[in-house]
Amino acid sequence: MIADLVIHNGTVVSPEMAIAASVAIKDGKILALGAAQAMPQAGEILDARGLHVLPGAIDVHVHFRDPGYAHKEDFATGTAAAAFGGVTTVFDMPNTIPPTGTGEILREKHARAAASAHVDFGLYGLLGEDTIEHVPALIDGGVIGFKLYMGNTFGNIPSPSTGAMLEAFEVVAATGKRISLHAETASIMARREARMAAAGRRDPLAHLAARPALVAIEAVSRAALLAEWTGARIHILHISSADELRPLAEAKARGIDITGETCPHYLMLSAADYARFGGIIRVNPPVREARHQEPLWRALADGTVDMIATDHAPHSPEEKTRNDIWSVDCGFPGVETQMPLMLTEAAKGRFSICDYVRWSASNPAHAWGLYPRKGVIAPGSDADIVIYDPAAQQVLSAASHHMNVDYSAYEGMEIIGRVDTVLSRGRVVIDAGEYHGATGHGRFLHRETCQYLS
Amino acid sequence: MIADLVIHNGTVVSPEMAIAASVAIKDGKILALGAAQAMPQAGEILDARGLHVLPGAIDVHVHFRDPGYAHKEDFATGTAAAAFGGVTTVFDMPNTIPPTGTGEILREKHARAAASAHVDFGLYGLLGEDTIEHVPALIDGGVIGFKLYMGNTFGNIPSPSTGAMLEAFEVVAATGKRISLHAETASIMARREARMAAAGRRDPLAHLAARPALVAIEAVSRAALLAEWTGARIHILHISSADELRPLAEAKARGIDITGETCPHYLMLSAADYARFGGIIRVNPPVREARHQEPLWRALADGTVDMIATDHAPHSPEEKTRNDIWSVDCGFPGVETQMPLMLTEAAKGRFSICDYVRWSASNPAHAWGLYPRKGVIAPGSDADIVIYDPAAQQVLSAASHHMNVDYSAYEGMEIIGRVDTVLSRGRVVIDAGEYHGATGHGRFLHRETCQYLS
Amino acid sequence: MIADLVIHNGTVVSPEMAIAASVAIKDGKILALGAAQAMPQAGEILDARGLHVLPGAIDVHVHFRDPGYAHKEDFATGTAAAAFGGVTTVFDMPNTIPPTGTGEILREKHARAAASAHVDFGLYGLLGEDTIEHVPALIDGGVIGFKLYMGNTFGNIPSPSTGAMLEAFEVVAATGKRISLHAETASIMARREARMAAAGRRDPLAHLAARPALVAIEAVSRAALLAEWTGARIHILHISSADELRPLAEAKARGIDITGETCPHYLMLSAADYARFGGIIRVNPPVREARHQEPLWRALADGTVDMIATDHAPHSPEEKTRNDIWSVDCGFPGVETQMPLMLTEAAKGRFSICDYVRWSASNPAHAWGLYPRKGVIAPGSDADIVIYDPAAQQVLSAASHHMNVDYSAYEGMEIIGRVDTVLSRGRVVIDAGEYHGATGHGRFLHRETCQYLS
Amino acid sequence: MIADLVIHNGTVVSPEMAIAASVAIKDGKILALGAAQAMPQAGEILDARGLHVLPGAIDVHVHFRDPGYAHKEDFATGTAAAAFGGVTTVFDMPNTIPPTGTGEILREKHARAAASAHVDFGLYGLLGEDTIEHVPALIDGGVIGFKLYMGNTFGNIPSPSTGAMLEAFEVVAATGKRISLHAETASIMARREARMAAAGRRDPLAHLAARPALVAIEAVSRAALLAEWTGARIHILHISSADELRPLAEAKARGIDITGETCPHYLMLSAADYARFGGIIRVNPPVREARHQEPLWRALADGTVDMIATDHAPHSPEEKTRNDIWSVDCGFPGVETQMPLMLTEAAKGRFSICDYVRWSASNPAHAWGLYPRKGVIAPGSDADIVIYDPAAQQVLSAASHHMNVDYSAYEGMEIIGRVDTVLSRGRVVIDAGEYHGATGHGRFLHRETCQYLS
Repeated sequence: MIADLVIHNGTVVSPEMAIAASVAIKDGKILALGAAQAMPQAGEILDARGLHVLPGAIDVHVHFRDPGYAHKEDFATGTAAAAFGGVTTVFDMPNTIPPTGTGEILREKHARAAASAHVDFGLYGLLGEDTIEHVPALIDGGVIGFKLYMGNTFGNIPSPSTGAMLEAFEVVAATGKRISLHAETASIMARREARMAAAGRRDPLAHLAARPALVAIEAVSRAALLAEWTGARIHILHISSADELRPLAEAKARGIDITGETCPHYLMLSAADYARFGGIIRVNPPVREARHQEPLWRALADGTVDMIATDHAPHSPEEKTRNDIWSVDCGFPGVETQMPLMLTEAAKGRFSICDYVRWSASNPAHAWGLYPRKGVIAPGSDADIVIYDPAAQQVLSAASHHMNVDYSAYEGMEIIGRVDTVLSRGRVVIDAGEYHGATGHGRFLHRETCQYLS
Repeated sequence: MIADLVIHNGTVVSPEMAIAASVAIKDGKILALGAAQAMPQAGEILDARGLHVLPGAIDVHVHFRDPGYAHKEDFATGTAAAAFGGVTTVFDMPNTIPPTGTGEILREKHARAAASAHVDFGLYGLLGEDTIEHVPALIDGGVIGFKLYMGNTFGNIPSPSTGAMLEAFEVVAATGKRISLHAETASIMARREARMAAAGRRDPLAHLAARPALVAIEAVSRAALLAEWTGARIHILHISSADELRPLAEAKARGIDITGETCPHYLMLSAADYARFGGIIRVNPPVREARHQEPLWRALADGTVDMIATDHAPHSPEEKTRNDIWSVDCGFPGVETQMPLMLTEAAKGRFSICDYVRWSASNPAHAWGLYPRKGVIAPGSDADIVIYDPAAQQVLSAASHHMNVDYSAYEGMEIIGRVDTVLSRGRVVIDAGEYHGATGHGRFLHRETCQYLS
Repeated sequence: MIADLVIHNGTVVSPEMAIAASVAIKDGKILALGAAQAMPQAGEILDARGLHVLPGAIDVHVHFRDPGYAHKEDFATGTAAAAFGGVTTVFDMPNTIPPTGTGEILREKHARAAASAHVDFGLYGLLGEDTIEHVPALIDGGVIGFKLYMGNTFGNIPSPSTGAMLEAFEVVAATGKRISLHAETASIMARREARMAAAGRRDPLAHLAARPALVAIEAVSRAALLAEWTGARIHILHISSADELRPLAEAKARGIDITGETCPHYLMLSAADYARFGGIIRVNPPVREARHQEPLWRALADGTVDMIATDHAPHSPEEKTRNDIWSVDCGFPGVETQMPLMLTEAAKGRFSICDYVRWSASNPAHAWGLYPRKGVIAPGSDADIVIYDPAAQQVLSAASHHMNVDYSAYEGMEIIGRVDTVLSRGRVVIDAGEYHGATGHGRFLHRETCQYLS
Repeated sequence: MIADLVIHNGTVVSPEMAIAASVAIKDGKILALGAAQAMPQAGEILDARGLHVLPGAIDVHVHFRDPGYAHKEDFATGTAAAAFGGVTTVFDMPNTIPPTGTGEILREKHARAAASAHVDFGLYGLLGEDTIEHVPALIDGGVIGFKLYMGNTFGNIPSPSTGAMLEAFEVVAATGKRISLHAETASIMARREARMAAAGRRDPLAHLAARPALVAIEAVSRAALLAEWTGARIHILHISSADELRPLAEAKARGIDITGETCPHYLMLSAADYARFGGIIRVNPPVREARHQEPLWRALADGTVDMIATDHAPHSPEEKTRNDIWSVDCGFPGVETQMPLMLTEAAKGRFSICDYVRWSASNPAHAWGLYPRKGVIAPGSDADIVIYDPAAQQVLSAASHHMNVDYSAYEGMEIIGRVDTVLSRGRVVIDAGEYHGATGHGRFLHRETCQYLS
């Protein structure tokens, strides 16, 4: 047999080990793993001498704004930026227009995304106040999981009541799908914002002041309790504070199936950055005081927080630079910069590259039942692979990134390492930093439970 | 000096001890405590040979329905029934008409109650969604504390949002007043009731099914977190389930100033009683499965639950006996039967009479800052005293009680012991079971902090 | 009736309250408590205007060295010093010569002590490696409880093995007596001391270095586990470190009947004092780094530590001032200085005088079943009373104290307040700071369980 | 390149997945893993159709009795039996004659074992009361870790004091080696046995009665505390009771590097089996009441207990069948039966085969720093492989096993599955159940830390 492609001489990384091995690929899947001499002939050879060979990152939290907000981003620009960043699987959020809350809307979004995606993707279905009836159709349509907003304070997606959440958890629990939660308490924030606005506050720090960590603690605690009571699997999105780690850890200790993510901006930005970036870094939950960073790093290390996601949420430059912080859109892009940012910290010795693979690939794959199809370099797995050059140096900048905005919250940051080559199901989509992918290559992922041999 | 009255030969009980001692009274206060021979001359002598001399019970949770629902109960009938039951201090709830939510309404209620009360009383102020502005006037008016409904699912008192609760807690924390909470999650119950009603359920057990213990766990957990964040002192009303004991105990372990009460009906009635009593025992939270009783008793014993209150909540017989459980009014009377019910259990050996005094008198007095004016038989304290005959036998019945309804949830229950004599500030209001009190004798209690000598 | 004595105009203190009241006494017991006008005629009147009237302190941990070490202290000098310090009950330790380990030895010690004691006393029996057979005789002889040395590293009282402890706990549990534990791990200390001595260390700090807090943690944890398994009641003597508070608190949370004491020297002295006092303050466990003090104060406040005792342990000046720290005898006196030291802290606002009464009198009385005979000023209780002048000022000094040594670890310390008058069972033993007691007045206390009315 | 051997068509199992893959082997190591068509040519082909391909089990707890007790077992018979049982790595205990307590003795044992071993092996060094001086030589000699007996009640290896343990932990902590603990409290057991023997008990259940779970709780708690204080890595051998799981879980939650094993006999035998097997199943800790089994299974599932080991401890039939239980030698063989016993439970659905690989191979390899050399089937790893037939059926019996005794505690037990083929570093030592190995093939393992790429 002749393989399509063999990667030679690299260091193949999993959460458990980093070993010298070659990787052979055929028909979009890993064909074999082993010594170079044992590999079959191949149509194409990549030399990864001195490079790391990682499973592509799975970003379970992106907003590609499509349909409805194409001026911010669309599925084509978003998935291309993901590929540049070593992200080979994305889960897109349902707060598009219309929200992904019915089977029909999901089908339309699926068709649209499939036509333009550069990498594989899953789509979230929306759980709202009175949308339980749509759960079966959304599952039939193949949602990767559900999103529930406990903390939306504006817009067209109101936060459901605790009673509605309970019913939604009961129904979804029976399906085995995971519910991802924006865990902030809407009513606290809405009132605080109103008070601060009434008092004339318009500055960026007002946004932080309106969202004390209490809102996260309260929402995580409540969600964990509902999960315990119903058996639902839940995921806490964008953990931003030291304070919410206690209820998260206690929930895990009680045996609740709860996972959590944090985002690079909570680890690497802090309140001091508002002075430089202003509304650019307005995001929910807010970038917080620097004291939260070390506890978040420790929580990743000890497993309280399971994974890294980006909450990639682009808005147009105009939407991010208004004078009144309350009128600045929340969120900013990040799908492309996660891997370089995190692996710079690994290079500095904060954690091992094995840890990174656990947080960026294998844990997300396990939590959504994609493992071992995704999240690992093993025979039979999808050949979603990143070849990473740990010795390269670069400077992050809006001038060079591929996300659809001309600003960056990491402008000027010095990075150790570089995404050199990216394969999506065996196809080289990034080669020496150049793009070789194609719209429509990305495929829709239905949730699967393939952890154990049937 | 000549005392007004001396009680000789009884056993005087406090949480710490039960000792043979006489009690001398003058001008409504305890004058002295000691050996009979050491007592001063007295205008009146009571012989308490073989009897227990207890501080009068403090019932921190009664609904006397006045003004607004006089057909159910009024302050005169309610406080008279309290006196018959050995209860010499009551705290009345604010869900009268209009709700006790402003200084002006409080003054009117105060005047009305003062004119008719047979025993001392405190009045709660209401905390609602947007009532923070009234807190100062309510405090000026002398509220004993505040009541906040997290679990009202009908009527004119909607449950405030978590955001409004947080603001209320912040404001009240600065005053040192305690906030009493109906800790059930309204939105869960409202939706469950609607679903069950839509499904045709009209039977009494449907009421229980609509209020799983989850609603109490959730509300207690959330309230404790808000108290922790703000420093507010809180009190959990009518603890009904084994499940809410964990969050309560954890809150205490974290140093939160949280107290809790349970009611006789959660200790002595169970789901099996719906067959006999039907809507009569519809109450919020509901009378639950028998498995909850032992954990509640243990929680009293170990201090997780601090006190006994009654949630005395009378409705007319017609209001309690409708065929459709959803149209039956919630609550039933109990202010008169608490002491006999509890002391029957003491007589059977479940706990000591010292424990009872802790739960019924000293702990409530401490929690609301009334100690040692109330809640203890000590020199200088108000002479609120019950002489209890532990050897008497009686049978509870609507035919013989003094509460303003002709039904009883304890109809036919055999009781060991009897309230023989009751003094309210030195005045004998019950003598050998006969009434000698007067409307207007009861006085309004402002919260005071007198634990320590100034 | 004519009382023997009435104390007028003072402030009578209990853990729950401090009230203006007079106290009448007859035949060694409290006759009545109340308003001055209500008190009976009396043979003697004490005016306590401006003074505090406290229950006499109960010191559950003293070494009066009698018989066997009369050059250090004897029962007469020790109990007289106790009286001067407001201590009206002492529990004497069994490491006299011969150790109090058999019924016969106890009887002899009892007779000797009764002949000379100035205040009431209890005697501990010794639990050793193979002394279980003597437990019944010791109980018949009236021991107040047992002492078990987990941490003796020299002398004639070896520390029993864990196996022997378990058997002792099983036997004593059945009697209801409390076992007081010197909770340090002997084998760790013995080896550390040997290593340090071999390395030439002879300085006072070497003693601290040889006894890391680990020895206390280990011993407390092990003792708590044995108590949990056997149902034995235990008491942890001389808690000296922040570290042992966690196992103590966890044991209480698990429902184990465990109490604990700390001593003034752990609250008020620290490692810095070795420079001034040298071997004078060599004691087991050692005076530790200052960082332990605040956690110990907090543990008293929150109830993790139950009481104050002194571990009064005098040695002759010669025995305390040898150059080689390993040859300096361990322990120093303190029975007389506890109350002034602690009440100075109360005067400075660290805690209330009610707290002090709980730690010094009512908690010890409860723990050993003496309450309400001891530990409280209530009708029928023993008239063990201290009249304390909170406004006086004094300076502690070996020149003025009454303990049998010419050194003081508190030399020169400024004290707010003064023990003015002390009554032991109604007899004035200290009057305006002058001694009026008599040897042989003190009585032997058998453990009693009188908390509840029979 | 031509591989030495390829295993085709099997299901390759790791803790994370079970995948269809072929495995190529060369020079004793895994050469490649992947699709059959991608494998290189091979000198030998094994067909594993329908079979599981597992990493060989690592048994961290065997007693091969050599030198000193060759009549019980020797290294040749023990390692051969291990191979028959799918165990390709063993750690041998130091209680041979003389005990493995010095560098010289270790070298002699190493030489002797290397000459006869059929599979790879590590050797434990002994930690005793005064053996710290030998630690460096033992480490130079290549011990895999240390063994410390907290619970030896007879023989030539006394249990060290807590003080000696602390010193040993301090010294070993600096080396990074793991200390394996027989965690029972010797003094409790010695006294209980003496009492029971004195009372005439000679029956097998007396052995259980003499060793209550308390001894395990106490010892685990104490060891964890010493590990916390010193930073030593520890391993709790032969966890036998539900009770010791709490201190173990608490220690893990406090961040202590503590691992634990249980043995098949605690999961599959219970007190009821003494009636049939008598002294045959006398072992330390004892086979306990059946109520302990479910908690132990849950602890494996939730990770409180990390692994399965056997405590393989053969004695001659005569030594196991004496009438007096106190004279029966403790322990019985099990190295050969672990895998069939456990995988029968997997076949019945109690856990997955992935779980089994975690407990039997990858967790032991991680804990002793052997991963990924051992414990996983990955390129570059030692080719220690078991081909297991999950569909076979067999009956366990002393008549057919290869351990050096003629009794079995599992006599007659029906097994689902069979060890078909075993490779030790690429050499087929068992083929279709037949032996093909050789003495001296097994190699001595020095501890290595190879988890992360250097």
